[in-house]
Amino acid sequence: MASNLAAPREPDRLPEQELRRLDAWWRAANYLTVGQIYLLDNPLLREPLRIEHVKPRLLGHWGTSPGLSFIYAHLNRVIRMQDANLIYVCGPGHGGPAMVANTYLEGTYSELNPEVSLDEDGMRKLFRQFSFPGGIPSHAAPDVPGSIHEGGELGYALAHAFGAAFDNPDLVVACVVGDGEAETGPLATAWHSNKFLNPSRDGAVLPILHLNGYKIANPTILARIPDEELRALFIGYGYEPLLVEGHEPDAMHQRMATVLDQAMAQIRNIQAAARAQQPGAQARPRWPMIILRSPKGWTGPKQVDGLKTEGFWRSHQVPLSGLADNPEHLKLLEDWLRSYRPHELFDAAGAPVAEIRATAPVGARRMSASPHANGGLLRKALQMPELGEHAVAFSQPGAVKAEATRVMGDFLRAVMQANAQARNFRIVGPDETASNRLQDVFKATGRAWMETILEEDTFLARDGRVLEILSEHTCQGWLEGYLLTGRHGLFSCYEAFIHIIDSMFNQHAKWLDASREIPWRQPIASLNYLLTSHVWHQEHNGFSHQDPGFIDVALNKKADIVRVYLPPDANTLLWVTDHVLRTWDRINIIVAGKPPLWQWLPMEQAARHCQAGLGVWEWASNCGDSEPDVVMACAGDAPTLETLAAVALLRQHLPQLKVRVVNVVDLMALQPSQVHPHGVSDARFDALFTIDKPVIFAYHGYPWTIHRLSYRRTNHRNIHVRGYNEEGTTTTPFDMTVLNGLDRFHLVQSVIEWVPQVGAEGAALHRLMQDKLAEHTAYVRVHGQDMPEIRDWRWNAIDQGALE
Amino acid sequence: MASNLAAPREPDRLPEQELRRLDAWWRAANYLTVGQIYLLDNPLLREPLRIEHVKPRLLGHWGTSPGLSFIYAHLNRVIRMQDANLIYVCGPGHGGPAMVANTYLEGTYSELNPEVSLDEDGMRKLFRQFSFPGGIPSHAAPDVPGSIHEGGELGYALAHAFGAAFDNPDLVVACVVGDGEAETGPLATAWHSNKFLNPSRDGAVLPILHLNGYKIANPTILARIPDEELRALFIGYGYEPLLVEGHEPDAMHQRMATVLDQAMAQIRNIQAAARAQQPGAQARPRWPMIILRSPKGWTGPKQVDGLKTEGFWRSHQVPLSGLADNPEHLKLLEDWLRSYRPHELFDAAGAPVAEIRATAPVGARRMSASPHANGGLLRKALQMPELGEHAVAFSQPGAVKAEATRVMGDFLRAVMQANAQARNFRIVGPDETASNRLQDVFKATGRAWMETILEEDTFLARDGRVLEILSEHTCQGWLEGYLLTGRHGLFSCYEAFIHIIDSMFNQHAKWLDASREIPWRQPIASLNYLLTSHVWHQEHNGFSHQDPGFIDVALNKKADIVRVYLPPDANTLLWVTDHVLRTWDRINIIVAGKPPLWQWLPMEQAARHCQAGLGVWEWASNCGDSEPDVVMACAGDAPTLETLAAVALLRQHLPQLKVRVVNVVDLMALQPSQVHPHGVSDARFDALFTIDKPVIFAYHGYPWTIHRLSYRRTNHRNIHVRGYNEEGTTTTPFDMTVLNGLDRFHLVQSVIEWVPQVGAEGAALHRLMQDKLAEHTAYVRVHGQDMPEIRDWRWNAIDQGALE
Repeated sequence: MASNLAAPREPDRLPEQELRRLDAWWRAANYLTVGQIYLLDNPLLREPLRIEHVKPRLLGHWGTSPGLSFIYAHLNRVIRMQDANLIYVCGPGHGGPAMVANTYLEGTYSELNPEVSLDEDGMRKLFRQFSFPGGIPSHAAPDVPGSIHEGGELGYALAHAFGAAFDNPDLVVACVVGDGEAETGPLATAWHSNKFLNPSRDGAVLPILHLNGYKIANPTILARIPDEELRALFIGYGYEPLLVEGHEPDAMHQRMATVLDQAMAQIRNIQAAARAQQPGAQARPRWPMIILRSPKGWTGPKQVDGLKTEGFWRSHQVPLSGLADNPEHLKLLEDWLRSYRPHELFDAAGAPVAEIRATAPVGARRMSASPHANGGLLRKALQMPELGEHAVAFSQPGAVKAEATRVMGDFLRAVMQANAQARNFRIVGPDETASNRLQDVFKATGRAWMETILEEDTFLARDGRVLEILSEHTCQGWLEGYLLTGRHGLFSCYEAFIHIIDSMFNQHAKWLDASREIPWRQPIASLNYLLTSHVWHQEHNGFSHQDPGFIDVALNKKADIVRVYLPPDANTLLWVTDHVLRTWDRINIIVAGKPPLWQWLPMEQAARHCQAGLGVWEWASNCGDSEPDVVMACAGDAPTLETLAAVALLRQHLPQLKVRVVNVVDLMALQPSQVHPHGVSDARFDALFTIDKPVIFAYHGYPWTIHRLSYRRTNHRNIHVRGYNEEGTTTTPFDMTVLNGLDRFHLVQSVIEWVPQVGAEGAALHRLMQDKLAEHTAYVRVHGQDMPEIRDWRWNAIDQGALE
Repeated sequence: MASNLAAPREPDRLPEQELRRLDAWWRAANYLTVGQIYLLDNPLLREPLRIEHVKPRLLGHWGTSPGLSFIYAHLNRVIRMQDANLIYVCGPGHGGPAMVANTYLEGTYSELNPEVSLDEDGMRKLFRQFSFPGGIPSHAAPDVPGSIHEGGELGYALAHAFGAAFDNPDLVVACVVGDGEAETGPLATAWHSNKFLNPSRDGAVLPILHLNGYKIANPTILARIPDEELRALFIGYGYEPLLVEGHEPDAMHQRMATVLDQAMAQIRNIQAAARAQQPGAQARPRWPMIILRSPKGWTGPKQVDGLKTEGFWRSHQVPLSGLADNPEHLKLLEDWLRSYRPHELFDAAGAPVAEIRATAPVGARRMSASPHANGGLLRKALQMPELGEHAVAFSQPGAVKAEATRVMGDFLRAVMQANAQARNFRIVGPDETASNRLQDVFKATGRAWMETILEEDTFLARDGRVLEILSEHTCQGWLEGYLLTGRHGLFSCYEAFIHIIDSMFNQHAKWLDASREIPWRQPIASLNYLLTSHVWHQEHNGFSHQDPGFIDVALNKKADIVRVYLPPDANTLLWVTDHVLRTWDRINIIVAGKPPLWQWLPMEQAARHCQAGLGVWEWASNCGDSEPDVVMACAGDAPTLETLAAVALLRQHLPQLKVRVVNVVDLMALQPSQVHPHGVSDARFDALFTIDKPVIFAYHGYPWTIHRLSYRRTNHRNIHVRGYNEEGTTTTPFDMTVLNGLDRFHLVQSVIEWVPQVGAEGAALHRLMQDKLAEHTAYVRVHGQDMPEIRDWRWNAIDQGALE
C-alpha cells in the first residue's frame, strides 16, 4: 500500500529565491492575520506596541489561519508557473482573516474596497474593520473576494468545490478541508463526489485535508488515527493521498511545492488521458488529494502562561488574551508580530514590497479575482422552451387528470435540451428523479456515473447531467457550488426530507442576503426546490415521510430571499417552473404532488392566476360579484381538490349559500405588502377574503403558518385553517385528509359551523357528512383504498349529481 | 492488505440439519414478507391464488427484506449457540415487513398483539394489517417489537447502535446498514463512533453493511467501487472487514455462519483482553464488521416482463404489480410464494412448525423481546442532587452577575457524580462542552477518547462520560440510541447549528408520538437540549451563527411532546435543568446564554416562577394590583435584560406610567390550554396580559413565533413583538439588539408609540432614545464594544440614577 502513497523523493523543488519569496508572502499574510485579530492602531509597529494599539475585545480564529495562508501562497505559485485557472474553497471559513490577508496582498481587496488601500492607512482600516461593529465578519463571508463558501457552519466545503468544478473543464478547485470539518457527516460523504466528476467534461477538485490536530478544545479524529488507517481511508474514498507533514517552514515549503506540482501533474495527466478518449469511454480515475499535517496556530506563541499553545487547541481563537492586565502577554504579542519581520515585508508607505507582490498571479488569475468565485459575472440566462407546448389541454376544470410532476419533467427535458450546448443546467436529487416522475428528463440526458456501468443499467451515463446520490447534503452542496459559480439548477426532493438540509438552506439564504449588500457581487441564479412525494401522498411510507414544515423554516429568512409556490395542478406547476428558472438571488420552493390528479386551469388561465399569486376561481364560486357568505380558500394540490369537492357538496345541498373559492399559488402573497414584496395590499386582501365573513382555509402544511402570514389582516379572526396536524400513518391519500380534518366532509362541516344561517338544512348536511366520514373509515379499513365515489370524483360531477 | 481481510477458509460451519433449519426460518420469513406485501386472504395458499386474495393497492419494500431476514436468522443462531445478548438495529427500516415477519416467527409479535395469533387466522390479520388503513406502518416503526430505529429517514442506524451499546457491556448491537443509507453524510461519519467506544465498559457494535447494490432506481456507490477500495475504506474507518458474498443460499448460509462466528469471537477476544487490563490502559481495538453482498430482492422473481428484477433496482418496492390486469403476474406471484414451500413451514393450523420455532432464542434473548429495545423497561430515575447547593445567592435582582451555563455545569457535575455508579447519564456535544461553559462537568468525568492520549491533552479519558465529536448528527444519534435503551442524557449545542439535526428531531418526535399509542412501549427519558452560544451572543462568529429558529421547527410537532424553556438567569436555568432531567417521553429545549449576566430571581422565587411557566415580576412592575398602562413581556435572557433596562428608563422618565413586567420561561404557556398541556387558561392569560392594553413583547427568537402562539388570545391585536429579524453580523451583544430593534431604547420607543397618553413627556423621551441609539452606534463603531453605561447597567441602578 505504502508504495502507492509515498511521494517521490525529488530534489528540492524551489530555488532559494523562490523559497524566500514564498516564505515572505506567507509571513506577510500571517502578519496581516494577527494584525486583524489584535490591532486597532500602529499597524506597522513603527512604535513599540502599547495597550491602546490593541483592540479591547479580541475576536477571531488564529489556529487555522497560518495553514490557510501557507496553502494560498503555494497555490499562487502553481498558478503563476502553469498559468492555471484555480479557485480556493476554504472549509475552515472562520480563518477569515487569513483569506482577507491574502486577497489584500493580491491587491484585489483594495481594488474592490478602495478605502482599504495598500498603505499604512489602509492597513489600519484593514485591521480595525475585522470583527468590529460596522466592519467585516470574522468568516470567509461574501465580503471576501474569491470566496464562494463561508464555512461558518462546517461540512459543505467539498460539495461546494465539486459543484464549482462540474462543467468547468479548465478550472481546478482547491478545497481546504479542516480536520474538524472532516468529522461532520456531510463532509464525510462528500468525498464520494469523485464518482460523479467526469475528467473530460468537468474541472478538477484538489482536496487538501488540513490536519492541524485540534478543534475548539479537543483533538480531531483524523489527526490521531494511525497513519495506515488515514491513508487507507482516502484510498477507500478513491483518491491517491499525498502527504505533507512537518513544522519547519523551509522544509515544508519544499515539500509542499513538490507535492503540489505532483498533484497538478496527475490532474493534467488524468484530464489529458480522458480527453483523448472517446467521450463516455473513461472510467473514474484516481484523483490526487493532499494531506497537510501542520501545527495548529503554526508560527504563533509556543507557550502562553507555561501552557502549550502552538500545535495545540489553545491556538484555536486568540492565543493571547487579557492584554490590558498582563504586560507579559502584550510583550508576547509584540514579539510574535515582529517575528514576521514586517519591515522586510512592507515598504515605507506600508505597501507590500515588490518582491511579495510579484509572487501573486495577475488579473483574473488571482484566486481572489476569479470570475468563477463571483459567479454572477458568468451567469447567462437559460434558454427557455415554449410553455404552451407542454401544457395539459382540456375543455373544463376537472375534466382530465394529469401527473403534475410528469408534465414538469417533460418541460425540464426541453430545458435540458435547449441548454445542452451551454452546459449550464443540472438537476440534483437523492435518487428520486424517477420516483418523483421527472423521468422524461432522461430522454435528454442521463444520470452522471463514473463507476462501472452494466448492461442492464438504466440512464447511467458518463456525461449525464442529472446528479443523484443518496445524500441530500451532497445534492444541496453541489447545487450551491454550481449556482455560486454562475450556472442554473433544480433540486428535486421528497418533501419531508428536505429538512435534512434546513441548516444549509439557512446558510445559503444568509449568503444571498449578505451578498446583496456587496456592490461587486453579481446576482446568481436562484436556488430552486421541487418538493414532491409530499405529506398527502405517502401511501408507501407513512408517518416518517410526512412533514410539510420546511416552508416554516424558509419563512424565517429575509422576506425578499424566499418564495413559496403551491401550484394546484400541472399547468400552474409549469408556469411556476418556468418562472423560477428565470429568477436570481432567491430561494424558490415549489411544492407539488406526483399522482394523477384532476386539472383545473388551462394554460392561459394558469399563467394569469400564477402571476397574481392568488385569486378567486369564479368558475367554482357561485356568488358572482356579490359578497359571499363564506370564503373557501385553498393552497396546495390536495387541499384544492378537497375544497372543490366540498364546494360541490355545498352547492348541491345548500344551493342558496353563496360561496367564493380563493386559490393561493404564491404563499407569500398572503403577507402584508410591507412585509414581503409579493404580499398583496390590505385592500386586495380584504376584497378577496372579505372583512367579516368566515374563511375556511384548506392548507397544504401546518395550519398556523397561514395564521402567521395573515395575522395582521382585517379579517384574520374569521380565518379558520385546516391543514396537517401530525396525524399520519401508511394509509390512502383521502384517509390522510380525513385523519387531519382537511377532507371535503370536514370542510363542509366547518362551513356549517361558522355560517349559522344555514340552519336546519345545514344541520342535516352536517349529519350527512358525519355519516360519510363513518362510511369512508369503515370502507378503507376493509378495502384498503378510497371509496370508489371519492376516487372517481370530478369537479364537473356536480352537474351530473354523481356525488350522491 | 488482502491477508488482513480474507476470512479463514474453514470447513462448513453448519451441520446439514442446522443448515436446513436456518434455511427454513429464512424461507418462512420471506414467505411472510411477501404475504404482507401482497395478500389479503388465502394466507397459506390452501387454494389457488386468485386476484381477490391480493391487496388492491400494493405497498411495501421487498428489495431489502430477504437480506434482513437472512441476517436475522443467523443472528438467532449466534444467540442460541452463545446465549448472547443481542439487539438488531435495522438501517433499511422500510424493510419493515421482514422485521415483522421475524418477530412473528419468534412468537413475540403475537404475545404483544394477541389478535395476530400464530395460526391461519392470525397470519391473515398479519398480512392484511401491513401498510393498510388502520393497520401498521410499512417501516420498522415503534410497533415492531425489538426495534429502536425506524429507518424511514436514512442515515442514523449506526449512531443509534453505538448509543445503545454505550454502558451496556454485555450487549452486542448488530446494526444493518443499507448501501443506500451508507451514502448519507450522517452514516458516513458514524463509522468513526468506534473512537469513542470502550471495550471494557461498553458493549459492542457489529456493523453489517448490506450491499444489495441498488437504491430506488440507481446502483449504490459502495456496491460499485472496486473491492480494494471498499476494503481500504473500512480499514480506514478502523474496522476489520469480513466479506460474505454470493447468492446461492446454502453456500451463503455456510459463509455467513462462519463469518458471524468469527466476528463474535473477535468481539469476545477484544472484550476479554480489554477487561483484563487496567481500566484506562486499553487503546482502540480494530473491531470486526461484516460486508454482506447479496442480490436485491433475493429469491424474488428473476425477471418480470422480460426485465431483470432479482439483483436489480426493480426489486426495490413491489416487483410484480398490475395483477388485476395481468394474469401472468398473478401466476408469477403464486409461483414465488410457493417457491418457499409454505406447507413445509407452517402446520395444519397455520403455526410455524416446531423445527422452525426451535431455532429461535427463548424469552428475553429473542431480539424482539429484548428489554434493551424497549428501554423504558430498564429506565431508572436519575439521582438528583439538591438544587439549592448550586443556586446563585444574592440580595436583590440585578445585584450580581453569573454565567448561567457555568452554574448549570456545576449542577451537571453533581448529576454526573450522583449517577456514576448507575452509569446511565451522558452528555453529548460537538466539541462545545467547554465552549458552552459546562466545563465543571470535567471535574466529575472526562471526554471519551480511545485514540492516543498525549501528555498535554486535557480531560480526555478512556472512561469519560462526555461524548464530543464535531458532528451534530452523530451526537443526536448517539443520544437517541442511549435514551431508547433506557438511559438519560443532555445534548449541549450552539443554538444555530441545532438546525443540522432538524430532521432527526422530527423523526424522534414522531417516534415518541407513535410510541405513546403502543401499550407495551414503556416511557423513555426525555431528549434534552441545551441551546447556548445563542443568537444574541455571537461576537466571535456573527451572522452564520445566528438562528433561533429551531423552536419553530419544534413547535410543528405534537404539542404534548415538545417543551421550550427560556430561563432568564442562572437559577431559573438550574430549576429547568433539574426538571427536564426528571421527565420522560418529551423533547425539552432549553435556550440559555453563557456570558456573565445580571441575576434576577433567588432560588425559591425561581422555582415558583418556573413552575408557573410565566408570571408578573412584581418587583419590576409599578402598578401593584391595578391595571397597567402597558405590559412589558419578555422571554429569553437577552430580551429580559433589555426589557428591565427599558422599564428602568420608563420608571425614571415617565414615573406616572403604570408598567407591568411579565416574564415567560415556559414558552408553551402562551398557547391556549386546549392546544398545549402547559398552556395557561384564557382567563389567566387575560389577567396577565390584560384584554386591551398594549403588550410590548421582547422575544428571544423570530417575532412571529409569539403571534403564532397567542393569536387566539383576547388581546392578541395589541401584542407587539420584537425579536430577531435576521439582522446580524460580528458585533457586540448590545449592538445586535439594536440592529434588530430589541434593545432598551427601541422598547421604550415602542411603549411611547403604543401608549398615546404619555403625551409630550413621552415624545421627549422618544427623542432621547433616538439620541441614545445614535450615541451607541457612533460609540461602537469607534470603540468596538458596548458603551460603558450599558456594560455596567444593573437593575438596581434604577435606585441610584446611574442610567443617566
